[in-house]
Amino acid sequence: MPVPTFDPLSLAAPAALRGLAPYPFPMPGPIINFRGGVPDPVTFPLRDLADAAQRVLRDDPTALQYGYTSAYQRLSDYLISRYARDDGRTLNPDQISINAGAGQAIALACTAFVAPGDAVILEAPTFAWALRIWKMHDAHTTGIPVDGDGLQTDALETKLRQLRSEGRPIKLLYTVPSFHNPTGAVLSAGRRRRLLALAAEYGFLILEDNTYREFRFEGDLPPSLFAQDAGGRVVSIGTFSKIIAPGVRIGWAAGHPDVVRALAAVRGDLGASPWMAGVVADYASSGKLDAHIRDIVPLYHAKRDRIVASLSERCAPYLRWRTPPGGFFIWVTIADGIDPTKLAAAAELEGISYSAGHLYMADASARNTFRLSYSHLSLAEIDRGIAALGRALARCAP
Amino acid sequence: MPVPTFDPLSLAAPAALRGLAPYPFPMPGPIINFRGGVPDPVTFPLRDLADAAQRVLRDDPTALQYGYTSAYQRLSDYLISRYARDDGRTLNPDQISINAGAGQAIALACTAFVAPGDAVILEAPTFAWALRIWKMHDAHTTGIPVDGDGLQTDALETKLRQLRSEGRPIKLLYTVPSFHNPTGAVLSAGRRRRLLALAAEYGFLILEDNTYREFRFEGDLPPSLFAQDAGGRVVSIGTFSKIIAPGVRIGWAAGHPDVVRALAAVRGDLGASPWMAGVVADYASSGKLDAHIRDIVPLYHAKRDRIVASLSERCAPYLRWRTPPGGFFIWVTIADGIDPTKLAAAAELEGISYSAGHLYMADASARNTFRLSYSHLSLAEIDRGIAALGRALARCAP
Repeated sequence: MPVPTFDPLSLAAPAALRGLAPYPFPMPGPIINFRGGVPDPVTFPLRDLADAAQRVLRDDPTALQYGYTSAYQRLSDYLISRYARDDGRTLNPDQISINAGAGQAIALACTAFVAPGDAVILEAPTFAWALRIWKMHDAHTTGIPVDGDGLQTDALETKLRQLRSEGRPIKLLYTVPSFHNPTGAVLSAGRRRRLLALAAEYGFLILEDNTYREFRFEGDLPPSLFAQDAGGRVVSIGTFSKIIAPGVRIGWAAGHPDVVRALAAVRGDLGASPWMAGVVADYASSGKLDAHIRDIVPLYHAKRDRIVASLSERCAPYLRWRTPPGGFFIWVTIADGIDPTKLAAAAELEGISYSAGHLYMADASARNTFRLSYSHLSLAEIDRGIAALGRALARCAP
Repeated sequence: MPVPTFDPLSLAAPAALRGLAPYPFPMPGPIINFRGGVPDPVTFPLRDLADAAQRVLRDDPTALQYGYTSAYQRLSDYLISRYARDDGRTLNPDQISINAGAGQAIALACTAFVAPGDAVILEAPTFAWALRIWKMHDAHTTGIPVDGDGLQTDALETKLRQLRSEGRPIKLLYTVPSFHNPTGAVLSAGRRRRLLALAAEYGFLILEDNTYREFRFEGDLPPSLFAQDAGGRVVSIGTFSKIIAPGVRIGWAAGHPDVVRALAAVRGDLGASPWMAGVVADYASSGKLDAHIRDIVPLYHAKRDRIVASLSERCAPYLRWRTPPGGFFIWVTIADGIDPTKLAAAAELEGISYSAGHLYMADASARNTFRLSYSHLSLAEIDRGIAALGRALARCAP
């Protein structure tokens, strides 16, 4: 008797079917890849991390055990000191959640607070991974436009009023207020205050993703939302993926103790690696992390300057953009008359790749935009890549 | 105006509310703790792992980057060679999922395949973490009794027939067939064949958790379910948590390529640490892991012998148990006439702690049982702990 054909996807839950397209990590290859929020590997403090890995196991073998080990405590202590310094807040250990990067914190918050159909407010555009998570959970997603001062809070209030009148539970707002992914915008001080007031009025949590906060090239950053949060409505999300390296897979969330309990309640793993938590704590609390950040920010600043100069020189007639005051990305709008699909194909032929703007939109709109990530490319690659983009644009221009 | 009191749990999704009780990791303290599926920290290959951590970063800085790096490929290659050797199966890389331990694989499988109300079949008793995951997802859980030959397949068939007649989708069966958690039982060869036939007949996936497979003290193990799976219905789950150390947080799942795609589709993180994957691959593929397993199994064997001898000497009138042929646990039934709640209190007063049996049951039954984990205790602690248990039993006996 032949084995009957078996189709595992016939058993799949809706969440799996919604997520089947793989997340597009940039892959090595001959093309110049402007995709991905990926740090430059030349910044990775390889020797310091390797030394820390040795030191942690020598001093604390429980870093290889299950549970809330002293390695977690060391990292938690470090994060508490960092919040005191950066946000003027005094936190307790039960306000800290240690996770596999910012991505996992977003997913845990979604599972913990969002039932299918609950409203989640996003920036439009927003972080593609976050969008993937909300869609996987069948959240009712709404995008609020972002301009040079970040999330448009007037449009937000209009939308909140509408959602309330529809009787839909408004659970979360997800924002990257400082060097926004993908536009690079900084949410202004006034809009930060307005957003906090709206959260209190409409009763939702704010997930403040500070992944790019340290990558400031010019201008001042207003106080974080978390710094100004008197009511416990802000969850502050951070990660070591960009300021140390993604491969340690350590990030965190900080907030109300009951929020942290809820995040723990829905974990599918048994915690992040305590060894890696210990490595990060050892490296960061030695003062090396702060020095490292001071060293690497100018590198990204130079890349930002180079891509803006290149775009101005090669692409100005065909594209519009705002110069981001920090972060990893530049968001561009394609001139009328150029077909975005044809442009993407022409760019591939010229040997470059970028992320189409609709991937960052809850409603898959904004077809005439795309994101350029300059963070992981060398200055020479940026020059060659933008020159190639200029050729592709010229070929597609009417 | 005073800040209004804010209750984040008023916003929580049902999954978070179901999971609020923290998972009971054994905590260090003065008591002798028979809880937890925890390896003995004296077995951790600290120096070899620290060396591997250095070597990986020296040879492969992309182990600190995002994405499907060469570190993952090395681990995937190692696992493929292991499956060829142990299960006689030739796998492709798209049949391997790398995860944060076995626990995450179980959670991913649940999210990928189980919608609320779908039937999940469990052993009764079963792994408490798995039970927590199914309950969090609001699965319809059914426990099938386990005896000395493992899962009772006759009882399973009766239950499957009933679930089918109720029209309930039967999605998954979760089993620990080799040195079962918590009873130590081995599923017999005949029952393995029967289980595979029932999976094909009733159309469900089998999650085969092989976490304790290497900890064999005596007797032969029948071929794994995965080794005998012609139809792609078995997902083989493994972990390095017990054979290397939990703190690396690396486990895996192997199965049908579409199952692996579905697991990837529902990930909330962006993958396990490639650095840790590289460390495990470096250590394991050098041959050191096999030698390590040969070294550590006799240690656990001696602990098993010691706890059985101690129980026979101190507790025989009050408890019944089967001697487990492998694994980390012994499952005991309390004699009639002894109140389980009073016994637990008396045991705490005597300075020991164990896990109540109902924590392992989908229906929270089996109040007259408990699990003793001997894996992380020294022989002297086992002796002192079981002597204390004997005193507690004597005090509670009628």
